[in-house]
Amino acid sequence: MSQVRIDPQVHLPMPVVLVGVMVEGKANFMPAGWVCRANYTPPMLAVGIGHGKWTAKGIKEAGAFSVNVPATAAVETVDYCGIVTGRSTDKSAVFPTHAGDLGAPLISDCPLALECRLHDALELPSNFLFIGEIIGAWAEESILKDGAPDPQKLDPLFLTMPDNTYWKLGPALAKAWACGKAVKDRL
Amino acid sequence: MSQVRIDPQVHLPMPVVLVGVMVEGKANFMPAGWVCRANYTPPMLAVGIGHGKWTAKGIKEAGAFSVNVPATAAVETVDYCGIVTGRSTDKSAVFPTHAGDLGAPLISDCPLALECRLHDALELPSNFLFIGEIIGAWAEESILKDGAPDPQKLDPLFLTMPDNTYWKLGPALAKAWACGKAVKDRL
Repeated sequence: MSQVRIDPQVHLPMPVVLVGVMVEGKANFMPAGWVCRANYTPPMLAVGIGHGKWTAKGIKEAGAFSVNVPATAAVETVDYCGIVTGRSTDKSAVFPTHAGDLGAPLISDCPLALECRLHDALELPSNFLFIGEIIGAWAEESILKDGAPDPQKLDPLFLTMPDNTYWKLGPALAKAWACGKAVKDRL
Repeated sequence: MSQVRIDPQVHLPMPVVLVGVMVEGKANFMPAGWVCRANYTPPMLAVGIGHGKWTAKGIKEAGAFSVNVPATAAVETVDYCGIVTGRSTDKSAVFPTHAGDLGAPLISDCPLALECRLHDALELPSNFLFIGEIIGAWAEESILKDGAPDPQKLDPLFLTMPDNTYWKLGPALAKAWACGKAVKDRL
């Protein structure tokens, strides 16, 4: 082992989602990797978005947003949404959508689409951390197993930085809350 | 396409980290998947942890914590840390550690270890969302490429729920802020 100090501007591997929101009457979508669950009951998630983003303006104004998990086949379209801003480019027709209970644009051809009610907007120095309660969830029927998304059928995208690479989910390795029992028994 | 409504208690695929903290004088470690970057400058991350967790008590008291990215080879030890609680089991000797500038226990044999100063603790209904500023980063020299972790050498773990499965990173698919240009040119 030889750990060395590196620049603290470090990124973790990220799942890739598309954040959908109505802005000035039009649906807009941006890819985001700064996203994770934040609360168990009720289910909430957190998403970090730069102060200047069109999506940030939309979430604050609409009070609702969607978090859509695209499949890897959509990688080019996902990336396109990160190259152009809704401020100058109308992305409302990029995906077919349906409105959630709160009016957030849910992407109909994503395997998983969640609608969130804005619970809190934490203003950090350069980003907002939006906390949303998941009030509705839609999934493509074919990816479900026992009523929940099957990870391999979901076929999610991951992003790493600074190499700016999209990745597929790799092979399954072990079971959680299970494989560690061998260690427990050894100690 | 046929999306159907499902239970909103939905999980995204998650990167797996070990959160390290000093609690009552002893280093403790818990695996966490509710973790993402939260702010760009200065670098911050967010981690969601249940109210009752020993780690939550430690972070609030110490004001500092570590976020360590284990390699897939450590999967059983990582899982072990999620099976036993620091409240009743001393996990301080599970990993070799070195103290960060703020005294947080950094795992010496993880390929990547970050020390965070607690910036904010958002109290949600069942979890705290801890926001930490990354004030130091250490990486195993052999995983670096141009000074930053190379994702394949980092060899991170992912977790999905409710199937409770650990996964490896899959094959690289495309370049971000690049592959979408083909879509832009088509439109």
